[in-house]
Amino acid sequence: MTTLDLLVQNLSRLPGIGRKSASRIAYYLLKADRSYLATVARQIAELPDRIRSCSVCGNYTEEDPCSVCADPRRDRTVLCVVEQPQDVQTIDATNEYHGLFHVLQGVLSPIDGMGPEKLNLAGLLERVRREGVREVIIATNPTVEGDTTGLYVVRLLKGSGVAVSRLASGLPVGGDLEYADRTTLARSLKGRTPLST
Amino acid sequence: MTTLDLLVQNLSRLPGIGRKSASRIAYYLLKADRSYLATVARQIAELPDRIRSCSVCGNYTEEDPCSVCADPRRDRTVLCVVEQPQDVQTIDATNEYHGLFHVLQGVLSPIDGMGPEKLNLAGLLERVRREGVREVIIATNPTVEGDTTGLYVVRLLKGSGVAVSRLASGLPVGGDLEYADRTTLARSLKGRTPLST
Repeated sequence: MTTLDLLVQNLSRLPGIGRKSASRIAYYLLKADRSYLATVARQIAELPDRIRSCSVCGNYTEEDPCSVCADPRRDRTVLCVVEQPQDVQTIDATNEYHGLFHVLQGVLSPIDGMGPEKLNLAGLLERVRREGVREVIIATNPTVEGDTTGLYVVRLLKGSGVAVSRLASGLPVGGDLEYADRTTLARSLKGRTPLST
Repeated sequence: MTTLDLLVQNLSRLPGIGRKSASRIAYYLLKADRSYLATVARQIAELPDRIRSCSVCGNYTEEDPCSVCADPRRDRTVLCVVEQPQDVQTIDATNEYHGLFHVLQGVLSPIDGMGPEKLNLAGLLERVRREGVREVIIATNPTVEGDTTGLYVVRLLKGSGVAVSRLASGLPVGGDLEYADRTTLARSLKGRTPLST
């Protein structure tokens, strides 16, 4: 196989990149300037050395603790429990949440061999107790695995005296009743919010 | 900016990769094993040193002349003129073409400052004369620029005695008349093929 074929093969392993996109990217790289190629290559190669898990929340970070945990302006009494490091950014981007995070680094999934011992759960209860957390928001995905993991966290926090909530599930904003699936619609009915009259 | 932000920014420059895909890829890379990262990084960095243009046809290659030009089983009397190196693979994948290629490395596009002097045209006439080419197939894209470039090549070959043809334009196989655009339908009418009765 040629260098180009090998690169295409390796690029096709990336998420969302099929053979055609990989080939398109490879040909783009062939035309790109050397400094760009050198920079991207260095950034990829150095990734495992520069980025690790925050010892407090489990988020990816270059400094330990991470910038979120170290931010003094954040409300340290609220903790948002998410599955993946990327969820931290997603929730932060709403500008509606100013508390801290706890990254589980996965979800419970017996089929994939993901038991509770593989999740970043050990530090959670300790954080809640030590740091004076008042509320834990479960923000795992609204999937079977995410819901199961959420329930597991709820059980873990039982007796800790902390308020626990779950992200609302329902119709996406801008969506259309007609195109909502039955489960989502059922959840949005069950979780309907009262309006003042 | 963090290492991760910088990598996401650089990955978003790739074709077909927006900010979201770039971020997804970056998080995938964070979980990937070191040897994969090292290999991809090396392949990207070494690209400009390992791959150059074939001095005969203009295709990307590691050896000069390229494997297509050097292949003794190919029909050296037919030459297919394409815009980009990736078009060589695309046409080869049909298994219907067994001749040689000539890669223009671009199309005529005055707006983008692409004049004939920037295309790999110099060697074309010489190849046709020297190598005993009988037919030149113009396989530029069926776009305004591709068609213009094709016409330019036709004019260039005038008087060389070689037969010149153009890839057929028309309805895509498996397509539906209802969804065909007017221009494509008009071309497929104009280029209709006679059937024996």
